[in-house]
Amino acid sequence: MKASIIIIGNEILSGRTLDKNSNFICYRCSKIGISVNEIRVIPDNKVIIKNTVIKLSKNYDYVFVTGGIGPTHDDITAEAIAYAFKRKLVLNKKAKELLVKHYNKSNVELNESRIKMAYIPSQSRLILNPVSSAPGFKINNVWVMAGVPKIMQAMFINSIEPRLKKSKVIKSISVKVNKAEGDIANILENLNNEFLSVEIGSYPFYQPPQIGTNVVFRCNDQKKLDKIIKKFCRIIENQDIIFSID
Amino acid sequence: MKASIIIIGNEILSGRTLDKNSNFICYRCSKIGISVNEIRVIPDNKVIIKNTVIKLSKNYDYVFVTGGIGPTHDDITAEAIAYAFKRKLVLNKKAKELLVKHYNKSNVELNESRIKMAYIPSQSRLILNPVSSAPGFKINNVWVMAGVPKIMQAMFINSIEPRLKKSKVIKSISVKVNKAEGDIANILENLNNEFLSVEIGSYPFYQPPQIGTNVVFRCNDQKKLDKIIKKFCRIIENQDIIFSID
Repeated sequence: MKASIIIIGNEILSGRTLDKNSNFICYRCSKIGISVNEIRVIPDNKVIIKNTVIKLSKNYDYVFVTGGIGPTHDDITAEAIAYAFKRKLVLNKKAKELLVKHYNKSNVELNESRIKMAYIPSQSRLILNPVSSAPGFKINNVWVMAGVPKIMQAMFINSIEPRLKKSKVIKSISVKVNKAEGDIANILENLNNEFLSVEIGSYPFYQPPQIGTNVVFRCNDQKKLDKIIKKFCRIIENQDIIFSID
Repeated sequence: MKASIIIIGNEILSGRTLDKNSNFICYRCSKIGISVNEIRVIPDNKVIIKNTVIKLSKNYDYVFVTGGIGPTHDDITAEAIAYAFKRKLVLNKKAKELLVKHYNKSNVELNESRIKMAYIPSQSRLILNPVSSAPGFKINNVWVMAGVPKIMQAMFINSIEPRLKKSKVIKSISVKVNKAEGDIANILENLNNEFLSVEIGSYPFYQPPQIGTNVVFRCNDQKKLDKIIKKFCRIIENQDIIFSID
């Protein structure tokens, strides 16, 4: 299963806010064997949202969207996605009920702005929001969530993950070495040529005095993975390189 | 001036690493009047890198690329970008000199893997790396940097920013209120209709007991900005809403 992520928000593109939502989604997906192949961050612009959603919806099994489903004038995601799929934005009864219940309980006025959050593209399924009630929605293969990380995470874990098709998880083992990439590049290249079915990623870190490389081995086949790790560790041990396995 | 960012790296898409590079670039760009309109995170795949670079290079004044220019087998960015612009990957003399100097000084062997970092697409300009010497490069409107944040930041600040065309900075003022979005949505909508040239962004935060909204006003015209801030603050003051201006 292949997925992509669309992060909607001018605040990310202006550098005001660091996006952590895509990292969360990528991490959760990799734990259930869904491979995220692309992330796009785009502005709060109806036509751009529409075009991006159409494009990625065609190319991937799942598209996860975050941001722009709140009660204010700049929340245009629902409208843009209705536009993308040629649906109407309609008052969703179930969504309204959820809002009524939540705001009654919390003694906050369910004003006209908040009611706006119950307008959802027709023929969508709701994505429940256990934090602040205003739901996300699923339309075709596109899952639309809030942008606030706490709410997005609750939506994803509770209401999305259980509905996704799990695939075989690609096993991975990470080895941290106290050597710069350039010192082990040759070893990695040889292993890469020998173990064609293992993906070897090399990720340097540079925070003096901590300098070194995380080497990540990924493969479907546990035996192959064990074999390459054993071989790699033996080689670097012989060169007195200090390492730790995650 | 309009820009886009391409973050290259399987480690971002697997959720293993949180990308902070795009946030840094967005922030720096907004301080010099360059608007980042799109970010894409893509895997270490030659064809995908090539296609993405070609596409974004046509659509934007600047394309900033990070990741994949190190000495290991999975560092394929230089090769993919040479491919995109139909250039050859050639040993760049200046780049090699920089490496020789750096590795001589630090008493580390400049082995074959490290020499690989001096292979740059022909007719590129170098982007200096004051941290670990291996340079990035500029080809047409595409600026290619390392993926390690410390190195990327040094490259951007020292060797890229001074070469970018600055534009008029869009002024912005942020007002933090202790009310949920739904409580002030109506006020914002009215202001949005009255001040058409001001972009109003509403960004809720939800970390109980801290709940509230950051409202960001952006406009080229300082007078208009002052006027809308004054009006907004008067309205929320009258409703006993607590606020602070950033």
